[in-house]
Amino acid sequence: MDSLWQELEQYSESDYYPFHMPGHKRSGWPYHKRSGWPVSALYRYDITEIEGFDNLHDAKGLLLSLQRRAARVYHAEESFFLVNGSTGGILSAVSAAAREGKKLLMARNCHKSVYNAVLLNRLEAEYLWPETIEEFDIQGEISAAQIEKHLEGRQDICGVVITSPTYDGIISDIRAIVEAVHACGVPLIVDEAHGAHFALSDRAPKSAVECGADIVINSVHKTLPALTQTALLHVQGTLVDRERLKDYLRIYQSSSPSYLLMASIDACVRYIECEGKKSYGRLLAFREQIDKKAAEFSHIRILPQGEDRDPGKLVISVKNTNMSGRELYQILLQKYHLQMEMASVSCAVGILTGMDTQEGVERLIRALAEVDKGLEKEEGAAGAYDIKPAFSGLCIYEAAAEKKEWVLPEEAAGRVSGGFLYFYPPGIPLLVPGEMIGEKQILLMRECRERKEYLTGISDDGKICVLTGNMHSGRK
Amino acid sequence: MDSLWQELEQYSESDYYPFHMPGHKRSGWPYHKRSGWPVSALYRYDITEIEGFDNLHDAKGLLLSLQRRAARVYHAEESFFLVNGSTGGILSAVSAAAREGKKLLMARNCHKSVYNAVLLNRLEAEYLWPETIEEFDIQGEISAAQIEKHLEGRQDICGVVITSPTYDGIISDIRAIVEAVHACGVPLIVDEAHGAHFALSDRAPKSAVECGADIVINSVHKTLPALTQTALLHVQGTLVDRERLKDYLRIYQSSSPSYLLMASIDACVRYIECEGKKSYGRLLAFREQIDKKAAEFSHIRILPQGEDRDPGKLVISVKNTNMSGRELYQILLQKYHLQMEMASVSCAVGILTGMDTQEGVERLIRALAEVDKGLEKEEGAAGAYDIKPAFSGLCIYEAAAEKKEWVLPEEAAGRVSGGFLYFYPPGIPLLVPGEMIGEKQILLMRECRERKEYLTGISDDGKICVLTGNMHSGRK
Repeated sequence: MDSLWQELEQYSESDYYPFHMPGHKRSGWPYHKRSGWPVSALYRYDITEIEGFDNLHDAKGLLLSLQRRAARVYHAEESFFLVNGSTGGILSAVSAAAREGKKLLMARNCHKSVYNAVLLNRLEAEYLWPETIEEFDIQGEISAAQIEKHLEGRQDICGVVITSPTYDGIISDIRAIVEAVHACGVPLIVDEAHGAHFALSDRAPKSAVECGADIVINSVHKTLPALTQTALLHVQGTLVDRERLKDYLRIYQSSSPSYLLMASIDACVRYIECEGKKSYGRLLAFREQIDKKAAEFSHIRILPQGEDRDPGKLVISVKNTNMSGRELYQILLQKYHLQMEMASVSCAVGILTGMDTQEGVERLIRALAEVDKGLEKEEGAAGAYDIKPAFSGLCIYEAAAEKKEWVLPEEAAGRVSGGFLYFYPPGIPLLVPGEMIGEKQILLMRECRERKEYLTGISDDGKICVLTGNMHSGRK
Repeated sequence: MDSLWQELEQYSESDYYPFHMPGHKRSGWPYHKRSGWPVSALYRYDITEIEGFDNLHDAKGLLLSLQRRAARVYHAEESFFLVNGSTGGILSAVSAAAREGKKLLMARNCHKSVYNAVLLNRLEAEYLWPETIEEFDIQGEISAAQIEKHLEGRQDICGVVITSPTYDGIISDIRAIVEAVHACGVPLIVDEAHGAHFALSDRAPKSAVECGADIVINSVHKTLPALTQTALLHVQGTLVDRERLKDYLRIYQSSSPSYLLMASIDACVRYIECEGKKSYGRLLAFREQIDKKAAEFSHIRILPQGEDRDPGKLVISVKNTNMSGRELYQILLQKYHLQMEMASVSCAVGILTGMDTQEGVERLIRALAEVDKGLEKEEGAAGAYDIKPAFSGLCIYEAAAEKKEWVLPEEAAGRVSGGFLYFYPPGIPLLVPGEMIGEKQILLMRECRERKEYLTGISDDGKICVLTGNMHSGRK
């Protein structure tokens, strides 16, 4: 069968005339054409649900067969194209699992979209705190043992959500976690946004789908060649009500889904089929070049590969040197024109894929070697994620519904947070509505202000959102 | 200031190397390049929130200034780029207005996304039924008088939502409606998805923003040259909590918004600025050619232009002839290769924009003239939207939470609907969860099956979703 790009190409060359949306009538703005801009191609292929092109929200033809192909490639029972990113998939998955009056067990290092799903469904969340890998100031895995312990004898949990791999490439033991979660009779949702490329090759870590998770969400744009804002949701087994899940996919995603985004998901699935093994081999070869050189560095350390690690994540640490992770990020950007994915207190993180080039990889190696030479040993600051806020007794929805005011961090001690506070990326909340603001959080905010680091949730005039009035009496 | 397309073009030509997502590393799948496909341009410009390109969900730089430009062009106080379609804007707008225990007053001909917002916010909806324009079997406007009457003495309404223009191009008197709604102290949300082009020219109907609505949502892709899935949300006045609105825009839209979609919104705003008057002039000129010829037709009638009508909508009626609207749609498609936007029992609807071509317009005129010659007078069937279902007492959220089963329409009389039932397009529900299924609905479903018309909400084996058990005792 032809790819969706080919179908769109053929259609664009037909003489069918559009008296339908989009309003550009497949020709783009004449200005684009005049100046010979390649962007006019976007408009040429941009259609709506016309005859023969199916309807994502009720797929029965072309899009159904493309989604089935995706399911085959990912070894899932059923897969769905997502055009509102993994965000739309997370909201749908949690909403499908949510049950009135029950609680969601979730890893505390989940993406903000999981917290948003908790808010929308008025759930109470209980958290699984990941271990900390102190050597790199990053969060580690969630263990099956901690989940088993948490779920023991519990009848009030409606589902479990974890992130694996993490933004830093840490993979949890999904097979063991599935067992622990299923023993409780509830579904496991895995935010595998950063692990879409595990489908490339048998040499890659096993995907959460293959390990038996009930719903798995993959951002195909993050580590595979698909356009930004595209993702896949996979479902299997009988613990998830599929009709309910499909209802929510229709709710949280545009009723005018972009065929360009969908075509790039389809092309990505075909890429996995045709080029998967080769692509993953390239990724591993690039990674080996980097690791080999990094072994000679005096100060910079790269998080080593391992069974529970994604080789596509380069966690480049300058901990215990006279440079911060954010300074490293800026030097790589300004001096070497190497744009990293993100930075934290002591690390810069890069994404490596099978689409990288030898030239790019060599530039990174040279840059890191030069930076390494100039570094000196120095005691470093601690990471941000080892601060566990206290719970006020108000769940996210309850806190969000309260009256709020904006105050300076210094005035916020003992107050209940009215908003989310997070670095973006990675978008993992340090503080959620309903949590208490303590001295540690205030210190972190002060440090960020001093280092001019940007924390989302702090207003332009340096204030944060808290509930009006003094500390609430907890429910617990 | 440069357009976002230009910024992306310049960046793609720089030597900045991406160790970040997207995983295609701005080069697309080599297969695309090898075959010389123009789609590779999409990948070249597709970036994420890197240095200098701001963050849609916390815009402070480039994207903030582009959104301000949009606000200026649309005469709004504040405007937001939407990458999850008008859907994301509707969900955000209703969620921002929703208040626990209060009700939403909404036009019954709203798009399904408004009903979804009612579900998510667990609101009870009260409906404003539009008048029917029987001559064309379409729904007419919502009047200020009916809203005024409905709101009199009410303290339990948190907001009002209407659609204007409708899918058929019917515009309500927003200025008068604003007055009626504001008298009650609540915000008016206007789904103006189909009226984004009203900003093109002073000759166009006044936009809902200019008429004083509090939140207005425009699908820029529907009638203007922007990519599918793009839209704008405008807000003004003090009745809407803007922080709350922004929170929901962050919730319902991908945390990885597509720069391609955003660039096409920006280009569309510039199109309005540079080409607006000319574009609207072309639309009017096309429309006049069509109307002039249509005046000579014996059977086919086109909904006439008027002050409360969008000239961009061609409602082509074959009512009281031996042809149905859907047959007309199919003949235009199969014989003349003219793809209309949608069809109903007695009409086919086309979208006309300033991007149309003289050739396309002439083809439509010739095709309609030929079809008209072959038609004969015949009594026609009634439209689908004049059937008002009875309310069971369960609001959408309550009904959605009940146990459900699938039964044949014939077995559904007196049962409570467990799902939505609608034609897509236009996506206006004929039946929502919690409404009673009566003989009229069953007759409609039977007719659709006989005519092989496709109703979303009916399963492949012809069944519909109802609540388990017999009729519920109503709350009222």
